[in-house]
Amino acid sequence: MRKVRPALLKGFDQEFLPQEQLQFNALVELIRRNFERFGFLPIETPSAERIEVLTSKGGAEKEIYALSRLAAEDDDEAAAKGALRFDLTVPLARYYAENHARLPDPLKAIQIGPVWRAERPQKGRFRQFTQCDIDVLGLASPLVEIELILATTDALARLGLSGLTVRINDRRLLELVARDCGFPEAAHAAFFIAFDKLDRLGAAGVLAELREGGHDADAVRRFEALLPRLSAAEASLEGLRAALPGAAETAWESLATIITTANAEIAAGCRVRFDPTLVRGMGYYTGPIFEIAAAGYPSSIAGGGRYDRMIGRLLGREVPASGFSIGFERLISILAERGGMPAREGAEAPQRRVALLVDDGGDVAAAVRAAKALRVEGYLVSLEVRRKNVRKQLDDLVTHGFWGYATLDDPARRPTPKALARREDPR
Amino acid sequence: MRKVRPALLKGFDQEFLPQEQLQFNALVELIRRNFERFGFLPIETPSAERIEVLTSKGGAEKEIYALSRLAAEDDDEAAAKGALRFDLTVPLARYYAENHARLPDPLKAIQIGPVWRAERPQKGRFRQFTQCDIDVLGLASPLVEIELILATTDALARLGLSGLTVRINDRRLLELVARDCGFPEAAHAAFFIAFDKLDRLGAAGVLAELREGGHDADAVRRFEALLPRLSAAEASLEGLRAALPGAAETAWESLATIITTANAEIAAGCRVRFDPTLVRGMGYYTGPIFEIAAAGYPSSIAGGGRYDRMIGRLLGREVPASGFSIGFERLISILAERGGMPAREGAEAPQRRVALLVDDGGDVAAAVRAAKALRVEGYLVSLEVRRKNVRKQLDDLVTHGFWGYATLDDPARRPTPKALARREDPR
Repeated sequence: MRKVRPALLKGFDQEFLPQEQLQFNALVELIRRNFERFGFLPIETPSAERIEVLTSKGGAEKEIYALSRLAAEDDDEAAAKGALRFDLTVPLARYYAENHARLPDPLKAIQIGPVWRAERPQKGRFRQFTQCDIDVLGLASPLVEIELILATTDALARLGLSGLTVRINDRRLLELVARDCGFPEAAHAAFFIAFDKLDRLGAAGVLAELREGGHDADAVRRFEALLPRLSAAEASLEGLRAALPGAAETAWESLATIITTANAEIAAGCRVRFDPTLVRGMGYYTGPIFEIAAAGYPSSIAGGGRYDRMIGRLLGREVPASGFSIGFERLISILAERGGMPAREGAEAPQRRVALLVDDGGDVAAAVRAAKALRVEGYLVSLEVRRKNVRKQLDDLVTHGFWGYATLDDPARRPTPKALARREDPR
Repeated sequence: MRKVRPALLKGFDQEFLPQEQLQFNALVELIRRNFERFGFLPIETPSAERIEVLTSKGGAEKEIYALSRLAAEDDDEAAAKGALRFDLTVPLARYYAENHARLPDPLKAIQIGPVWRAERPQKGRFRQFTQCDIDVLGLASPLVEIELILATTDALARLGLSGLTVRINDRRLLELVARDCGFPEAAHAAFFIAFDKLDRLGAAGVLAELREGGHDADAVRRFEALLPRLSAAEASLEGLRAALPGAAETAWESLATIITTANAEIAAGCRVRFDPTLVRGMGYYTGPIFEIAAAGYPSSIAGGGRYDRMIGRLLGREVPASGFSIGFERLISILAERGGMPAREGAEAPQRRVALLVDDGGDVAAAVRAAKALRVEGYLVSLEVRRKNVRKQLDDLVTHGFWGYATLDDPARRPTPKALARREDPR
């Protein structure tokens, strides 16, 4: 027999043992249900899209996996134009552009699914990973950001994460900062990329990068003067508004509304905090931007923002849109560090996994009948063949998360399951 | 603004509107929970595997989608060796070979997920589609097939499908038929391929194909004489056993046990029927094989069988295995024809989707507070901005599956949702 090495593909190597998968599924279900409470509806798009659609946002080509037939006999046109999605936002924009006439207005979408990126794999960074996005399309109102923030913090708090901080800023204020310092319009993108590194490089590092990047020296000096006011731990919205006179009235107003309203209703121990240094990498944001971090974990669990100009590229007219994305891999690693998932919530009866042990060659009909009766009583029953070494078998059942076991020693009587934790070994 | 056509990729074009997606998710959840009642545990493998693993079963190369970087700058070794899975059985075999020491023995796995095939798309046939498999690895006993059949028919019956018929046969009996007729060992595979077409071509067609295929004329004649006994609507296990003396004692015994026991416990209106003409295409089956069809629908909804020699290619030693696979696309089209999914089962409270309408520029804080209070009462609440044409807005809510609506006319009082079905138009 030719033996093939049963190894996983590099970067496609995140998979769980069955008990971990049970926990992962419960996590997904809890998050999905919580978003449904906030009026969001699930949608799923195919894993592959036309390459023209995927590249419509620009800048992602390097990360894209194209599809081709392994044994290509002819030019398979459709396959040659297809590639795996690298995020859930571009497929959502395509879905909306294609179906908007039949969709609720606004569309409040939940998407939970895999995305693929042809990046170099690293620890905790995979080529296939799960994203969980909520988006509101068709409504330009601070109500949207308030609900995105409350729904996401509520879901994370129900998972047992405490001390969540939502940092919020607005792209229009960042533009105001750039203009106020005197950076010309064409230099804004490069300025934001440098500014985004404040956490990692510190103020001196960012200023050095700007100087080396050939930016206008006066602009960099004015930015240096403004920086202490931006990076103060408790930057004040009103203070900064006074220091940066400009035309961004709507941005200031909506930020104030979002922060005040969300803080009044947010889960206990969580808060929304204005952070004028928050940039977020993506160039497509047009309004409020936000990130969530849990107490004790520096990097963010979720991030998002408003992107009012993306859907237009596919629909031909602009549609207001704002979304929040949870990084599942990070969430799982934080939950694992904290000792796993909280118990399944809600009215669901505690599900008791039981092994019904039957002798090899024993009364199969009686065993199947007994298993059925136990299932009606609410047990999750696995019919298994009794091994010679029953003690070892029961130990294994404990290892694999079984609650109890039953034997069929008297086929005339319905067996009563016993908890494995309190067992005396049979025989 | 450059506009990109928002079309789907050919063959990757199955997606649902949000209300259909809700139903699809409920369907998946119902099936998964039902299999969990039978002691199965969920597992998920990555979408892509090493090409060497995917082709270890043989014969699937043509259908496989390979991955490559769209903007390949260097030879990305890992990507070049990866391809999308075309079924859930090969990845399960790899998963088992890799993790068996840490898995329950037997492993009873549920897998629900997409698979990809580079085939020509047709009506109801996609390049990405969902498979739902249950498999038992590590146990060779008729108990396995009995549980596979009962769990699957139970799940389908809960979905409201009635009159399910499970046709069952055994690969070892097919071998016995081939040997009894006198087909040499080397001709068995071709003989089974022709025999498999009995439903489509009829007896005359199958015999013609065998003759034209250059098979031994005596063997074909003996098969012709045996055929009436095989294709009789009520072929008898005992009758055929007497007519085909041979060494397949275990096959006859286990088939009899499976049929008798499963029929005693199967859901009302369903039955298991011996069908000696059932072949099933795949060459890797080694024992019992089975298919389920619903009354009124000729093609099968689910199919499977025992494949005791597949895992060996990856593990180096043979492991008994048997599985059942539900074709989701067919199931969905049958359910749609019958008027959709049955209502969500179980203790879950009826979930009432409500739109809370707030005036643009109204009291955002009061609206968010009211929405929260309604969610605590168990409503699924979507905060929406009241439009000028409220009547049209309420009609739209009905279209999109909302149960009710509420307005915030008196911010001091908690709003009471009204059912849209009984509404009098406001204003």
